[in-house]
Amino acid sequence: MNIDMIRAAAIRLDGHARRTPILTSPFLDDIAGRRVFVKAECLQHTGSFKFRGGWSAVSALSPEALKAGVIAFSSGNHAQGVALAARSHGTKAVIIMPADAPAVKIANTRALGAEVVLYNRATEDRDAIGAQLAADRGLTLIKPYDEPLVIAGQGTCGVEIASEMNALGVREADVMVCCGGGGLTSGIALALAADAPGLRVRPAEPEGFDDVTRSLASGQIERNIQLSGSLCDAIVTPQPGNLTFPIMKDLCGPGVVVTEQEALRAVALAFDRLKIVLEPGGAVALAAALFHPEASNGDAVIAVATGGNVDPAVFAKALATSA
Amino acid sequence: MNIDMIRAAAIRLDGHARRTPILTSPFLDDIAGRRVFVKAECLQHTGSFKFRGGWSAVSALSPEALKAGVIAFSSGNHAQGVALAARSHGTKAVIIMPADAPAVKIANTRALGAEVVLYNRATEDRDAIGAQLAADRGLTLIKPYDEPLVIAGQGTCGVEIASEMNALGVREADVMVCCGGGGLTSGIALALAADAPGLRVRPAEPEGFDDVTRSLASGQIERNIQLSGSLCDAIVTPQPGNLTFPIMKDLCGPGVVVTEQEALRAVALAFDRLKIVLEPGGAVALAAALFHPEASNGDAVIAVATGGNVDPAVFAKALATSA
Repeated sequence: MNIDMIRAAAIRLDGHARRTPILTSPFLDDIAGRRVFVKAECLQHTGSFKFRGGWSAVSALSPEALKAGVIAFSSGNHAQGVALAARSHGTKAVIIMPADAPAVKIANTRALGAEVVLYNRATEDRDAIGAQLAADRGLTLIKPYDEPLVIAGQGTCGVEIASEMNALGVREADVMVCCGGGGLTSGIALALAADAPGLRVRPAEPEGFDDVTRSLASGQIERNIQLSGSLCDAIVTPQPGNLTFPIMKDLCGPGVVVTEQEALRAVALAFDRLKIVLEPGGAVALAAALFHPEASNGDAVIAVATGGNVDPAVFAKALATSA
Repeated sequence: MNIDMIRAAAIRLDGHARRTPILTSPFLDDIAGRRVFVKAECLQHTGSFKFRGGWSAVSALSPEALKAGVIAFSSGNHAQGVALAARSHGTKAVIIMPADAPAVKIANTRALGAEVVLYNRATEDRDAIGAQLAADRGLTLIKPYDEPLVIAGQGTCGVEIASEMNALGVREADVMVCCGGGGLTSGIALALAADAPGLRVRPAEPEGFDDVTRSLASGQIERNIQLSGSLCDAIVTPQPGNLTFPIMKDLCGPGVVVTEQEALRAVALAFDRLKIVLEPGGAVALAAALFHPEASNGDAVIAVATGGNVDPAVFAKALATSA
């Protein structure tokens, strides 16, 4: 993994991924006690940064591999990003999802042109189903984060942040990034190390699912004890990736852990002050910027708002409990 | 009013107003039966396009007038736009608001540095209070729409639309604009007539408050019968402006009227598919684009999403009733 792969991905994404805006509000500055810049990746195609990695991977396929199609395991944002990227390239994505995934997520993924293959979580082996399908049909597997082309695609978000902060005159600041497996976090860290070395990535995680924060503290990969039960489900993964962790260990500052209540308050503030829709997992970095000011130094902080694919009932709850 | 005033305003706004993004979703394209481009003015500073007009007017003041300060009548988006523009220029805004305005709107306007003067709607004369204050303190009145500098500021949104649609190769399309007094509608119409003559403005209004649509049909200024009771309150005004109506009559196509339920559905779809927060009045143009496809021709339509300052309970209602 290196910056050249990110620059190559940026060229492939140009004109296809959206260059998401940097949003600000004096009300958020007051809460954080410093200027707050929000990179609104929820406004990316399919509602999350995952479209970048999906496009990066699909657009790098050989003509033969592209024609055969791609396959991914996901019930969430990665599925939609890969599905739309594949459809835009005129090929097919097969998405393997648990049969008990929310109906609306299955319908959305199908509506983006994907073939959805359902499996029974209790009785079937997801990986075996995927491997068989891939072998039978010559499909290329696109992993959600531990894949260089995907990390390179997510890293294009960091190239944009470096350019935008340079234009705003912000040379030194922490960059809070909502962190699951570390694809986005490591990609942004690589981009900033090359283009804006005064900007330092800080992985942000929800309480109880802070594998990256603990891994960075111990210096080795640590696992989450639980893998469900978080409203921040979009960024819950078992452990940091084998590719992403060494990059994060090398380039990131310490992790910042926020409570679920803080994530919900950040969702409500993003609604009220920025007019964007965030899912709780996509608001964790903003929560770190707003409610953990002691974790940072300097007169500015950047938060990457990673996604907005949230159930209306969860969103209404965030607004109601945080009013 | 002419295009040169809009170009001059664009120079004054450069680097201060946000260049708002154009957002799209294949799901919205499917509903409308053509490509839908949404100009997301809810992401403008203070959550609506009104900041453009406020900044345009404040930035054009003489040094003496700027020092004395400005005054505006508003309980809504215009108040916040003027307040932030004045504070950013280092001067004071006095905002006259009814004493029964929502507490949160009064607090927000004060938090943006404005001096809020409350009056009793039943017993006091708002205009007399404002005239006395303006005379005593040398304040400049900034009207919400029937003011050339304000129209010029709102018109900068149209300059951006012309440039963005040109880059996207969209040469012919209707541009739905949420319309109250007509400041934004007439400003965009002037800008498009100069920069993108194949794009035609269509004022969009809520049912029961369709003064502009009826005025355009009859050729003379018509009034609304009622002035309250609409969830789309942000764009309800008594009648089109004396400056704005002749421009709209000259340059706009027929108005498009949507139901309140259609506006709420557009709020829910903007949440779900674009990840932006709209107030019902700010979603009327999107509702026109999505649910009145027969009102337009061509393979593309543009909708200006004008504002997102919505009460959480109203927003939750939109999500719940439109699921």
